[in-house]
Amino acid sequence: MNILLQLLLILFLAKIFAEIIERAGFPGILGEMAAGIFLGMLWINPDDDILSFFSMLGAIFLLFIVGYKEINLQEVKASIKIALIPTLCSVIVPFSFGFLLGKAFNLEFIECLFIGVAFSPTSIGVSVRTLIDLDYLSKKIGSTMLSSAILDDIIGIFMFSVLISIATYHHIPTSMQLMIIGGKFVIFLIIMIILGWKVFPVLFTYIHKMQVKESIFAFVFMIAIFSAYLAEVFSLHAVIGAFIGGACLSSIPFAKIEDVQNKVSGISYGIYNNEQCDK
Amino acid sequence: MNILLQLLLILFLAKIFAEIIERAGFPGILGEMAAGIFLGMLWINPDDDILSFFSMLGAIFLLFIVGYKEINLQEVKASIKIALIPTLCSVIVPFSFGFLLGKAFNLEFIECLFIGVAFSPTSIGVSVRTLIDLDYLSKKIGSTMLSSAILDDIIGIFMFSVLISIATYHHIPTSMQLMIIGGKFVIFLIIMIILGWKVFPVLFTYIHKMQVKESIFAFVFMIAIFSAYLAEVFSLHAVIGAFIGGACLSSIPFAKIEDVQNKVSGISYGIYNNEQCDK
Repeated sequence: MNILLQLLLILFLAKIFAEIIERAGFPGILGEMAAGIFLGMLWINPDDDILSFFSMLGAIFLLFIVGYKEINLQEVKASIKIALIPTLCSVIVPFSFGFLLGKAFNLEFIECLFIGVAFSPTSIGVSVRTLIDLDYLSKKIGSTMLSSAILDDIIGIFMFSVLISIATYHHIPTSMQLMIIGGKFVIFLIIMIILGWKVFPVLFTYIHKMQVKESIFAFVFMIAIFSAYLAEVFSLHAVIGAFIGGACLSSIPFAKIEDVQNKVSGISYGIYNNEQCDK
Repeated sequence: MNILLQLLLILFLAKIFAEIIERAGFPGILGEMAAGIFLGMLWINPDDDILSFFSMLGAIFLLFIVGYKEINLQEVKASIKIALIPTLCSVIVPFSFGFLLGKAFNLEFIECLFIGVAFSPTSIGVSVRTLIDLDYLSKKIGSTMLSSAILDDIIGIFMFSVLISIATYHHIPTSMQLMIIGGKFVIFLIIMIILGWKVFPVLFTYIHKMQVKESIFAFVFMIAIFSAYLAEVFSLHAVIGAFIGGACLSSIPFAKIEDVQNKVSGISYGIYNNEQCDK
């Protein structure tokens, strides 16, 4: 099917289903996911390169706008401690159930592990969209759940690395290998903090003086893509990078102009619908 | 190369080159095209599906925003007569030179025709962007040149159809076949006029009442894609459809909200840079 037509169908059904579900009193994302499942089963090929890339961009911009506009970073930092125990439970409980499910079907140990790991992570995009739809993201419970979603994602990457190591080399990773995984995240964080603290503010005073149309918006867009890409280089998920990139910009006055925020927000909520088809 | 990195490089170089060229007093698009040629020769594969689709979307949204926000449709209509003779010259002169160039190299008749047709059309996207950069689009000369670019594009489609017919069936198309090509354009125009006159105004009074976030923006976005797609169904270029779709919305108050226009304009000028790589 023509890709323009696919895009049109996805956007149209996502908005219509979301509207119906919202009027029934539930978060709109439920409707969008239903639209995605419906289209995925009937017409749309979710493995299509272009649609996959679009959905990835949608998720990147959703998390970016959360860091850039919606959230108070201090609250997220403060809530990480509170979120730690619930997050660990939200990983261990589904992991155990998945593992036991495998055992119940007499699968091998490694297969049970795979099922457990497949059960444990929660989609950070879906959590965040649900919080936005329910208007909880700017409240204290919202930032706690966001911290939890981020921790969950990072724990998920750890678990997956351990699993891959067991499946490939038949032993759990050495403490050295685990430190490398953790170290990558720390290095990524340090790079982003330095960029947000020293580089981006200077950059945006120059960008502010540019004559080219929409230059601030274009550079905000670029930093979203840059931080997502950098996260992938450090074996993290692109969405985590985009969130941190957005947070880095959120304290720079030149980068946080309302008009630019509105545009990024339009793209985020406009394109993100496509994401659901891939789930 | 990672697609995020490619997108980042394209956007970054396009903006930097455009800034340099604009400061030197020329339209920014010259710099963007230079960036595109530079990247196309060195790193970027312009045949990449995702980049091609992005550049197509960029061109669609550029022409859409021109119809939707920048232009006065009455002036375009009024200037079509004035534009006709210059447009015909702007097709015939390069066609003749191309044809004679082929003759000079002793090529066959059909090969000379191909070179002539390849020389005749002017990219409607590049013309429009140049007019925007020079701030001419809202002036009388701007709407005349826009009419000329649209006529040029339609004449180009005609010439190409004739050429394909000669190359394939070794005779010029019958008057019936030519009427079908012209008829398709007329039918497309009639459908769009009916939609813009009767359907879209009613649609947007409903959309205006929707509770889902960014619903007006999403539907404006959809109509851009829809009209581009419909044009392709009728063997026209997607950009022509997008322009007409934008013009259809430009007189509907609910669809022409400044905030929505700003967002579409951000996307148009933000994404369009990618277009140049494919030239």
